[in-house]
Amino acid sequence: IKVNGFPCKDEANVTEADFFYSGLANPGVINNSVGSVATGANVEKISGLNTLGVSLARIDYAPGGLNPPHTHPRATEIIFVLDGELDVGFITTSNKLFSKAVKKGDVFVFPRGLVHFQKNNGDKSASVIAGFNSQLPGTQSIAATLFTSTPAVPDNVLTKTFQIGTKEVDKIKNKLAPKKT
Amino acid sequence: IKVNGFPCKDEANVTEADFFYSGLANPGVINNSVGSVATGANVEKISGLNTLGVSLARIDYAPGGLNPPHTHPRATEIIFVLDGELDVGFITTSNKLFSKAVKKGDVFVFPRGLVHFQKNNGDKSASVIAGFNSQLPGTQSIAATLFTSTPAVPDNVLTKTFQIGTKEVDKIKNKLAPKKT
Amino acid sequence: IKVNGFPCKDEANVTEADFFYSGLANPGVINNSVGSVATGANVEKISGLNTLGVSLARIDYAPGGLNPPHTHPRATEIIFVLDGELDVGFITTSNKLFSKAVKKGDVFVFPRGLVHFQKNNGDKSASVIAGFNSQLPGTQSIAATLFTSTPAVPDNVLTKTFQIGTKEVDKIKNKLAPKKT
Amino acid sequence: IKVNGFPCKDEANVTEADFFYSGLANPGVINNSVGSVATGANVEKISGLNTLGVSLARIDYAPGGLNPPHTHPRATEIIFVLDGELDVGFITTSNKLFSKAVKKGDVFVFPRGLVHFQKNNGDKSASVIAGFNSQLPGTQSIAATLFTSTPAVPDNVLTKTFQIGTKEVDKIKNKLAPKKT
Amino acid sequence: IKVNGFPCKDEANVTEADFFYSGLANPGVINNSVGSVATGANVEKISGLNTLGVSLARIDYAPGGLNPPHTHPRATEIIFVLDGELDVGFITTSNKLFSKAVKKGDVFVFPRGLVHFQKNNGDKSASVIAGFNSQLPGTQSIAATLFTSTPAVPDNVLTKTFQIGTKEVDKIKNKLAPKKT
Amino acid sequence: IKVNGFPCKDEANVTEADFFYSGLANPGVINNSVGSVATGANVEKISGLNTLGVSLARIDYAPGGLNPPHTHPRATEIIFVLDGELDVGFITTSNKLFSKAVKKGDVFVFPRGLVHFQKNNGDKSASVIAGFNSQLPGTQSIAATLFTSTPAVPDNVLTKTFQIGTKEVDKIKNKLAPKKT
Repeated sequence: IKVNGFPCKDEANVTEADFFYSGLANPGVINNSVGSVATGANVEKISGLNTLGVSLARIDYAPGGLNPPHTHPRATEIIFVLDGELDVGFITTSNKLFSKAVKKGDVFVFPRGLVHFQKNNGDKSASVIAGFNSQLPGTQSIAATLFTSTPAVPDNVLTKTFQIGTKEVDKIKNKLAPKKT
Repeated sequence: IKVNGFPCKDEANVTEADFFYSGLANPGVINNSVGSVATGANVEKISGLNTLGVSLARIDYAPGGLNPPHTHPRATEIIFVLDGELDVGFITTSNKLFSKAVKKGDVFVFPRGLVHFQKNNGDKSASVIAGFNSQLPGTQSIAATLFTSTPAVPDNVLTKTFQIGTKEVDKIKNKLAPKKT
Repeated sequence: IKVNGFPCKDEANVTEADFFYSGLANPGVINNSVGSVATGANVEKISGLNTLGVSLARIDYAPGGLNPPHTHPRATEIIFVLDGELDVGFITTSNKLFSKAVKKGDVFVFPRGLVHFQKNNGDKSASVIAGFNSQLPGTQSIAATLFTSTPAVPDNVLTKTFQIGTKEVDKIKNKLAPKKT
Repeated sequence: IKVNGFPCKDEANVTEADFFYSGLANPGVINNSVGSVATGANVEKISGLNTLGVSLARIDYAPGGLNPPHTHPRATEIIFVLDGELDVGFITTSNKLFSKAVKKGDVFVFPRGLVHFQKNNGDKSASVIAGFNSQLPGTQSIAATLFTSTPAVPDNVLTKTFQIGTKEVDKIKNKLAPKKT
Repeated sequence: IKVNGFPCKDEANVTEADFFYSGLANPGVINNSVGSVATGANVEKISGLNTLGVSLARIDYAPGGLNPPHTHPRATEIIFVLDGELDVGFITTSNKLFSKAVKKGDVFVFPRGLVHFQKNNGDKSASVIAGFNSQLPGTQSIAATLFTSTPAVPDNVLTKTFQIGTKEVDKIKNKLAPKKT
Repeated sequence: IKVNGFPCKDEANVTEADFFYSGLANPGVINNSVGSVATGANVEKISGLNTLGVSLARIDYAPGGLNPPHTHPRATEIIFVLDGELDVGFITTSNKLFSKAVKKGDVFVFPRGLVHFQKNNGDKSASVIAGFNSQLPGTQSIAATLFTSTPAVPDNVLTKTFQIGTKEVDKIKNKLAPKKT
């Protein structure tokens, strides 16, 4: 039996392991140019979350690290700062920025679907726990979405959107392209 | 009585005008650099839509016009092309672009919360009617959100996000800044 | 994998065709006694609409044509007039009729589940695009439901409901019966 | 404070009376031509139901009485027969009638928004308790909606819908018109 | 095809039996120490209720019988007293008890998820019909949950919760343990 | 304007403070017999959460402390262990206990509406951050609900529920009664 596209175990086979996840215990490994990494504790990791409409994630930030502007198409996010200090913000549909410097123990809300970011402007690592009202909130990172998609967003969309030339578009594409290995 | 933050008339005072709007009959006036304009027929225009969870909009495109990459935080969009031809697309949370050339009479879907755009690559005007499953879907235009918000998104967020210098950030900000009048 | 009873493709097999439909481009063929026909652009035609809760339809009206009183059990409807002029209306649970003459470009709302109709009293064809906040709103045409169902609604229900005799019931049944071919 | 358009008492003023209703204890008084009467136990009677999404109703039927074809725009209905015997049915959007003879103690379901009826073909009174998944399901009685609304549904809509003449329309209107007193 | 984990028949195979249940017609057999029994008319018994979000139940009480404190995790409950007299109550999250003596024909509401009970303090049997806004509301009986679960709730949780000794915990466990047969 | 019973500020007056809370930064003060305390970061503290359907809480446990069996009538809970070790569990509507020893960094889920508890069996303090898919999940502590409500749950309900005598009921009531000051 599948519900919501995820497997629903027979009740007899459900165990406490279906409601447990240990993968947020340690900081994620940061090996990208933005200097942050998010690790989800959602229905893909915790099968017992299926149909329950909630999940967590852990985000870790190197000194100077940025969780670049992104949206969660299916959820509001509420963070608790585990460690360090961050400058966080979201922009409304009226193009107003709400931002705040937050530190260990603080809570901040990013309303459903709005573009938001967190920046570690300190010189030590930072980390947060994030709660979502979706079992699989999804993440759409704005710059990666526009400049690294497959196939590519047409150049004339990008040049007109940002009012820049194709050369500048190419430069951004090259910089943001996932590293080959 | 207010419901949802919008006024709920006494039943005796409700008239057919509360369910009617004529503001989509003519193309919107396009006086911006992107060459497109959207006009909503939502609960702000049609008070009878309150609590009903649906609305329409009309979007008009000059030749070459672009409805630049944006999201609707609270709705899926489904368009019907009234006139002209458009190249349309959306990008998933896996950074896959789904795009298509659509023409008069075609229907296309932009799933909830995902970044999408429409580009008029033809030499005549185009227009669409869009349906939304929200009485007030909201629109967040990506480039305007990031480069024209008040207060501004910090420069070090933008430079790191797009891997460009502050000069280039300033150039984009200047180009995208709303025209003073 | 099925979600909602509709197939959910593996992500790798999804294409832009799953979000596209061209079947509303031309007027539907009207070959019935009421003089109107509705064509849906819903999840049965556009598989990518599954779980997204929105759809469109096109309705065409011959001169004098009527989209007879009906309900959509699962949606509110909002129409945009593509062409022609129509007299439209819905009746509330307090038996109040809200009606209006609408013409090309006008928008009108039929709230969730209420009986409504559109009548083309002009001498040229008319057509509308309708938005629904359901991927499969369903349609229940009142007269057909009561007088042409299989098996038939009992005569003593119909005679008492409309306070008419069985002869008159039979006359209506004969008139409304689907044409054999 | 109003929530949903209904008053929300200060918690200190809420009493058990806000969750109680005694108005279903006795059969409703039947003084109409169809021979049935429905009495609601919904948020208009029980203020504590506000936001809770459930309600009851009692329906009483004289011998031969009919609860004529109607819809509840906002709810599924599930009945329990308190007394007597009834022939009940609903019609789907595919114009299929599902009907059944039910008797004291039986349960039957009328799915959301579909046209349904109950007929007492016995020679003694009958009554049911109905559960709804809405605090205010609403009722739209089909014949009354079409033939007794204010203002009236246009004659040419009714004649075309039922394929009858205006004289027959007038006859039905006269029969169904609420008695003046 | 399965929807919600329950089978969805092909439309051609659906019959009126899928919307019917006769199992509430007679009082349930009471053979336990609390002196009450609940019989559900939910999606497990009525397959046509799937996705419709409503159900009924019948509860019967011997003289002196108690439906002990319990919750329905997924529904509000609204009862109609079929016979007899009951003392009913629920407790809010502010630990306020709302209680009332109800008799034949009375209606009472138990809001979503709150602990509630019904006690037959009379010397004759009683019974109620309960409506729920869930097709499968679930029932969690508080004392059974804490003292008879498999595996057992740890003793040091129970002793600290009720501030009693392990001997008293064992005594309650023995009294509440399901009878072996 | 009030929405959901909570004030909705005019957009011009909304500030970042409406999305921020610092009250979870330090452990709550534990001065009760169970040895744990919960502090909410919900819509009562963060007005910007209104209509957004998500919240956090922090729970602190003294060595040996217990968050006694309780339910959240309106939410699923997902915890992340900030510090220490806990034995946690929930009981299903089939009276099955799912329990697990969790330690710093672990995640565990308590499904919507089910009775659950956390016990600190270690010799150092522990604390968790909890995410909820409700802006105001509510908490109903089972023992306090049954033995300390105002007015009191009738003795004959409690004696029959737990199969104990009134003396034992009184003893529990006395032990659980809120301390006078």
